[in-house]
Amino acid sequence: MKNQFVNMLQEGDALNDYFVAARKDLRTKQDGGKFLGMVLKDKTGEIGAVLWNNAGDVARIFELGDVINVRGQVNSYQGRLQVRVEQITPLHENEYQVNDLINRPENTRDILEQFSAILASVENPYCSALINAFWNDDQYHPLFTRAMAGKKWHHEYSGGLLHHCYEMATLAETMCTLYPELNRDVLLTAVFLHDVGKLHEMTHELAVDYTTEGKLLGHLHIGCDLVQHKIDSIPDFPEKLRLELLHCILSHHGELINGSPVTPRTIEAIVLHHIDNLDAQTAAFSRIIRETREKGQEWSEYLPLIDRVIWAK
Amino acid sequence: MKNQFVNMLQEGDALNDYFVAARKDLRTKQDGGKFLGMVLKDKTGEIGAVLWNNAGDVARIFELGDVINVRGQVNSYQGRLQVRVEQITPLHENEYQVNDLINRPENTRDILEQFSAILASVENPYCSALINAFWNDDQYHPLFTRAMAGKKWHHEYSGGLLHHCYEMATLAETMCTLYPELNRDVLLTAVFLHDVGKLHEMTHELAVDYTTEGKLLGHLHIGCDLVQHKIDSIPDFPEKLRLELLHCILSHHGELINGSPVTPRTIEAIVLHHIDNLDAQTAAFSRIIRETREKGQEWSEYLPLIDRVIWAK
Amino acid sequence: MKNQFVNMLQEGDALNDYFVAARKDLRTKQDGGKFLGMVLKDKTGEIGAVLWNNAGDVARIFELGDVINVRGQVNSYQGRLQVRVEQITPLHENEYQVNDLINRPENTRDILEQFSAILASVENPYCSALINAFWNDDQYHPLFTRAMAGKKWHHEYSGGLLHHCYEMATLAETMCTLYPELNRDVLLTAVFLHDVGKLHEMTHELAVDYTTEGKLLGHLHIGCDLVQHKIDSIPDFPEKLRLELLHCILSHHGELINGSPVTPRTIEAIVLHHIDNLDAQTAAFSRIIRETREKGQEWSEYLPLIDRVIWAK
Amino acid sequence: MKNQFVNMLQEGDALNDYFVAARKDLRTKQDGGKFLGMVLKDKTGEIGAVLWNNAGDVARIFELGDVINVRGQVNSYQGRLQVRVEQITPLHENEYQVNDLINRPENTRDILEQFSAILASVENPYCSALINAFWNDDQYHPLFTRAMAGKKWHHEYSGGLLHHCYEMATLAETMCTLYPELNRDVLLTAVFLHDVGKLHEMTHELAVDYTTEGKLLGHLHIGCDLVQHKIDSIPDFPEKLRLELLHCILSHHGELINGSPVTPRTIEAIVLHHIDNLDAQTAAFSRIIRETREKGQEWSEYLPLIDRVIWAK
Amino acid sequence: MKNQFVNMLQEGDALNDYFVAARKDLRTKQDGGKFLGMVLKDKTGEIGAVLWNNAGDVARIFELGDVINVRGQVNSYQGRLQVRVEQITPLHENEYQVNDLINRPENTRDILEQFSAILASVENPYCSALINAFWNDDQYHPLFTRAMAGKKWHHEYSGGLLHHCYEMATLAETMCTLYPELNRDVLLTAVFLHDVGKLHEMTHELAVDYTTEGKLLGHLHIGCDLVQHKIDSIPDFPEKLRLELLHCILSHHGELINGSPVTPRTIEAIVLHHIDNLDAQTAAFSRIIRETREKGQEWSEYLPLIDRVIWAK
Amino acid sequence: MKNQFVNMLQEGDALNDYFVAARKDLRTKQDGGKFLGMVLKDKTGEIGAVLWNNAGDVARIFELGDVINVRGQVNSYQGRLQVRVEQITPLHENEYQVNDLINRPENTRDILEQFSAILASVENPYCSALINAFWNDDQYHPLFTRAMAGKKWHHEYSGGLLHHCYEMATLAETMCTLYPELNRDVLLTAVFLHDVGKLHEMTHELAVDYTTEGKLLGHLHIGCDLVQHKIDSIPDFPEKLRLELLHCILSHHGELINGSPVTPRTIEAIVLHHIDNLDAQTAAFSRIIRETREKGQEWSEYLPLIDRVIWAK
Repeated sequence: MKNQFVNMLQEGDALNDYFVAARKDLRTKQDGGKFLGMVLKDKTGEIGAVLWNNAGDVARIFELGDVINVRGQVNSYQGRLQVRVEQITPLHENEYQVNDLINRPENTRDILEQFSAILASVENPYCSALINAFWNDDQYHPLFTRAMAGKKWHHEYSGGLLHHCYEMATLAETMCTLYPELNRDVLLTAVFLHDVGKLHEMTHELAVDYTTEGKLLGHLHIGCDLVQHKIDSIPDFPEKLRLELLHCILSHHGELINGSPVTPRTIEAIVLHHIDNLDAQTAAFSRIIRETREKGQEWSEYLPLIDRVIWAK
Repeated sequence: MKNQFVNMLQEGDALNDYFVAARKDLRTKQDGGKFLGMVLKDKTGEIGAVLWNNAGDVARIFELGDVINVRGQVNSYQGRLQVRVEQITPLHENEYQVNDLINRPENTRDILEQFSAILASVENPYCSALINAFWNDDQYHPLFTRAMAGKKWHHEYSGGLLHHCYEMATLAETMCTLYPELNRDVLLTAVFLHDVGKLHEMTHELAVDYTTEGKLLGHLHIGCDLVQHKIDSIPDFPEKLRLELLHCILSHHGELINGSPVTPRTIEAIVLHHIDNLDAQTAAFSRIIRETREKGQEWSEYLPLIDRVIWAK
Repeated sequence: MKNQFVNMLQEGDALNDYFVAARKDLRTKQDGGKFLGMVLKDKTGEIGAVLWNNAGDVARIFELGDVINVRGQVNSYQGRLQVRVEQITPLHENEYQVNDLINRPENTRDILEQFSAILASVENPYCSALINAFWNDDQYHPLFTRAMAGKKWHHEYSGGLLHHCYEMATLAETMCTLYPELNRDVLLTAVFLHDVGKLHEMTHELAVDYTTEGKLLGHLHIGCDLVQHKIDSIPDFPEKLRLELLHCILSHHGELINGSPVTPRTIEAIVLHHIDNLDAQTAAFSRIIRETREKGQEWSEYLPLIDRVIWAK
Repeated sequence: MKNQFVNMLQEGDALNDYFVAARKDLRTKQDGGKFLGMVLKDKTGEIGAVLWNNAGDVARIFELGDVINVRGQVNSYQGRLQVRVEQITPLHENEYQVNDLINRPENTRDILEQFSAILASVENPYCSALINAFWNDDQYHPLFTRAMAGKKWHHEYSGGLLHHCYEMATLAETMCTLYPELNRDVLLTAVFLHDVGKLHEMTHELAVDYTTEGKLLGHLHIGCDLVQHKIDSIPDFPEKLRLELLHCILSHHGELINGSPVTPRTIEAIVLHHIDNLDAQTAAFSRIIRETREKGQEWSEYLPLIDRVIWAK
Repeated sequence: MKNQFVNMLQEGDALNDYFVAARKDLRTKQDGGKFLGMVLKDKTGEIGAVLWNNAGDVARIFELGDVINVRGQVNSYQGRLQVRVEQITPLHENEYQVNDLINRPENTRDILEQFSAILASVENPYCSALINAFWNDDQYHPLFTRAMAGKKWHHEYSGGLLHHCYEMATLAETMCTLYPELNRDVLLTAVFLHDVGKLHEMTHELAVDYTTEGKLLGHLHIGCDLVQHKIDSIPDFPEKLRLELLHCILSHHGELINGSPVTPRTIEAIVLHHIDNLDAQTAAFSRIIRETREKGQEWSEYLPLIDRVIWAK
Repeated sequence: MKNQFVNMLQEGDALNDYFVAARKDLRTKQDGGKFLGMVLKDKTGEIGAVLWNNAGDVARIFELGDVINVRGQVNSYQGRLQVRVEQITPLHENEYQVNDLINRPENTRDILEQFSAILASVENPYCSALINAFWNDDQYHPLFTRAMAGKKWHHEYSGGLLHHCYEMATLAETMCTLYPELNRDVLLTAVFLHDVGKLHEMTHELAVDYTTEGKLLGHLHIGCDLVQHKIDSIPDFPEKLRLELLHCILSHHGELINGSPVTPRTIEAIVLHHIDNLDAQTAAFSRIIRETREKGQEWSEYLPLIDRVIWAK
């Protein structure tokens, strides 16, 4: 069991506990020798770390994303806390608690069932076939249930992508009641698949980061490519439906400046974009208010991303 | 009963039917004489009109917003159709059908009841008192039920503002289920009041137009002023609640560039902004798709406001 | 042989000549009858046309993109010239000259050979295999040689896409001389494929227009999808090369606001973007200067797209 | 008398002097205990401070905005100077010099008289009544004379708002000479009232900060609300004049992006906006040049707000 | 004396009166013949004109900017009025009234004297020498006194530039009183010279238009070049003063996006920019309000340049 | 010979080696005494330095840009490394190696010859005369061959401006082959002169920095002024050619927002702008990739200037 969490560490602490190795860079010193720069992470945050001795050897005993026990000293370097590492020991799965390292809400299994029930109500056979092609894919399903929707801003926990999709599906159903002209099957399928590219854009293991593919292609294109591949496996998939679904995925960021190469041009696409945004921003405000209250403050810190402070009342 | 509607008129038609006088400008000719420029309107659209003889006398027999019978000729002037008016006769209320002149959906009464029921479920006594202060105001209530939410883009029909608020309330209830931390009473009260300033920003009679007050102050400020006035009449109205509600109204356009002097800084304000946007854009897409299909086209005309064409499939 | 070209027509002309039917809309009149709106096109421009009688029957005798002989009258409607059509006769291929209808530079065959020679110098076997997979595709090759790079701004003629690619390849070679660290094979393959999606984004027949797929997905995504499909057919295609090429295609518009979902992050991608832009803008300036001089003017008309006038000296 | 000023403090200094408590946050440590974070301020700047022992008790002996004597040590924490506090003693008014804590120009009384004289020249009785309603308000008048126009950029000293209004009034008079069509009474009343909302948007005591109302509603709306309230107390106040004045206040930031919900649409409103901007920017340049010269430099530091350096020659 | 002014002309009028030839384009018809396109102008506005017969010969008998008597017919072409010209007769100076053709305020001579007096108060001998180098230049002086500050938006009449500079000088003097640290001599010299480049950027004869030099270099650079040339003729002109003055001219548009290659970095430059803007916008509002009232309207037409309507009360 | 380079220094190092004095500020302490702030630079980077004793005397023994030997201690101050200086000794030219202090590629002489050969091929005699007026200017030529094109982003080494111009000339020649309508002489002359203003905008000695003239006027205007001065010395220089060349220089940043007061309006100007951009961005990517690889990383650090990371593969 873990005792020392990142958000508790203070200058001068002696450290001896386990973390995820979230970054691992073997670099060259001026004198030709090597040192090892790392980022250590647990469920409360992350901290930089550096190891000066035997860096080459130590770098070989663990991989990025492994859980390692770190012994060392907490120092201050250029105004930030940093661990000066003395010893690193890789741990086996039975030697650590995953829940010490990442956040996982307890109700994820319930949400999964409820979301599954909504998807089961889709009537169009091609939409169903496409949903099932992903749902029944042994590589896809476990990845989907543990993925985050993002690294920091909203639904930034294991299972976050599923929670986000479920909330959007609930909003989509309300919209279908208000606007019967909406194609419910297209909209729900698009909700399910809109962020599927994030499964490849980021790693969703203990260490979460953007992949090279993610940085070069982005999750909109990757998602379309995954969906296209599944569509290719469904006989007689209607061309019109294919275009509607791919358009929803490509346009769901709403504006070119936000990274969609096309803007929404169908009613399902415009609804998808706005419920995505509504849910994401509400979840972000909810997180910020919770964090602000935990610090005993009435107003949040200044948030550069949205250029404002938030009232936690 | 009306036979000649604006969207049927063609160059060369002899015209003899009634319209709303949606604009009325008595202007001076170079030779010092007067002529009368008008805009005529019915439920299908609007057309310019001009009267050259006796303009001063004729201008005195009707007011802006009156229903007048127009006799004249449909010409083309500078590339647009225009009525060259020969005779104008003001009509009495029993001489025309209001439904020929403005759009009014048939289900508005049902929507009013459903919306009323949602508002009745608000529990906070100060929120309830504020809602009732408007709902039971004889000047406000009939105006609210016939107001438009806008002149052209969305909910651009009599009763549109009510429909829009009802749809937002439905979405607000879904959001409260997903995010129990939302203050349902604040959110529903804000939904009800967010556009109340539009009742003074525009006229909502047969002729709809921006008022001088509307052009100078805008509906965000006017709405806050109306709400403040009602709050002043409720003893012990909590200051915190006053700030929350006024902030929701002022910030509901979401960004400075869209005319909000402050950006949303509470979770209810951010939800209000996004469900307003979601409902407005969906209604606009729905209208454009309907109009495009009525013209027998698959793709809409180019829409400068949103810089795209829309697929009506 | 054609005598009456679009840019010669004047109000009052009796018209009897052939054109491409570039648009064809059967619409409903207020009285329930039908009329036929069209756009007629030849190599000098396009003009609107309308047929009032027997519209339903006439609409059945030709398709969008057919060449039709049109008999009628040139009128002015709402400030623009328009053909009031009396009779339409579809023509067979031997009854018209394609060169009267579209622009085709004479040196296209030479350019094709030179471009082919440059591509043949690519050394990486996977790049070569990918290039050949397109070049030897019987559907692709003829389409590529007659495609335009755009409808209006630059290389807006049959073969324009080929000319544009060839010019970019020449510039790419200069850049490889100046910057030996550039991967010549990746860059030339990317030049060849960067706009391949335009082959499906637009029709490249007598009538050129955006397709539904083009409007919903855009040529960046379509191009990546075409390339991915060919890559799937090449055994052992390296993943790194796949990412480099797809990244070049997706990012070649340079900025999100210009429709690229990712910005250039490799040196080949940044070079591709800039030589595309350099060649496109130079070609556009060249065309505008030529057109301005043909009108006997020293300065071009105001160009809203680039917010300036151009000096034709 | 104060000896140790913020801008003199260096790492390692022993501190024993008085400051304004400009921020006071009682926070929870990881071990469940409390510590007290503060910001200390005097007329030369501000510095962070932290107290680790007995934080709960000490927090009770003074309020935000109080003047306190601080005994402690100046340390460096994460690259910034910080006071490690050992003892805090609240002072009485006779135990400190206000002029050590805030800037107050000596000529403020003269400026007040000159500004009063200009306002007295307003002829329109309703404008006069409105001006007097504020001027003779015992809550308003002392607040107005000590308020700052801003925290940092311009007129950032006690009395700054008055100085700024006086300078604008002088410019307004010049403009009235050049443009006799300007309504002098409207313009001068608007100058006097344009920033009145800042009296509630910020505190103007020893510690200056944005209030909750200020952060949620902004000074444009607050100002209009204050003015509306005074107008309500003046019988027969003309509606046209009410609209003109409120419009001037709401639009005086000039553009939506700068926080005005409406843009200036009267000539007095456009003049008000531009003289406000002219005076504010000139005052800011004047301050920056003075500070730059005091540091013995020819060029100012880089100023992110206006993205440039300024020449102090 | 002139009877028919541009703003009185109506479709069908027989025309026989004089105008300035504000544009003159000899163009080629499809059949190889020539026609002459013109723009005719008087003090009330401008109108297009076309001459079909003998275009080549007629084009030789007058120059752009000449005053010509035009006989013809007022028609409507593509939705705009146009003169179909039958005969053109060039007039001599004694055959027309300049005041029928351009606007010239009566008080220009007074303004010139007052402005001259202000400039005479400049004390710095190098500033004085520079001012005099322009003022005593026989080419410059008469051009300065009849130049416009712009074609349409503000001070768009003969003498407008002088009026604009005088108004700015008055504001500059007020600013020097408020901010004694301003260098009055630098500021007044900069006011005088800030738009001197407009004398070459546009023609300021009867026909006003941008010159080729103006379109290619802009008045900021041209102005600096003119000033530099005069400075070269003044022995020992201080380098610091040269930089201050050229910087004021180059930066007076305030922001890069408005065409200044550098932003204001001295206090005189920031004041110059803001008083220029203040005076220009006020003059524009004043003109729009006057024009709106003359049409008997309360609100102006929509003004695309500033995206609003203006209240003329 | 130098042993201690900036990028090797670590906290705690004793320092005794030579550097360029890249900044030198004598400042006032609170107690009235002086201290000396400096920036020290060599070919690997720069570091802040401070001297507390005898600051006034020491400041007199060297000038900004001199090479000085520094003895002191490397400390950390507010999170950054800083040299606490004990002794400063100015060096003579024979006491240091210039190549330790600045970067100078070895092939600069070759590039100079090749560039000279291209310029020699210019045929227009006025272009040639203008080129030679600079090339044969004893002040200009050595400055041109050692100047940098920029401080940091691209061609940021001694000789960089020459390399940049040579690369652009090579691209210009390719463009002239592809677009024979380009005026090769104008384009090559413009390439040679487009950044000539940088010779005065920055110092290009051991210490490189913006000059006061550079900060106030910018290199576009300074360049035009230098060119105008040379043109004045060439008899009968054609006005059209003068306008073309000055326009190329003024517009070569492409857009107002990038600091060009006019946008490109000739075909040579648009080509110049785009090849400048192409070469600059490619050189910057090349540098970033090299630096990233040297650190043993696959992806660059985040680059705020272009808002992305770059793949160094």
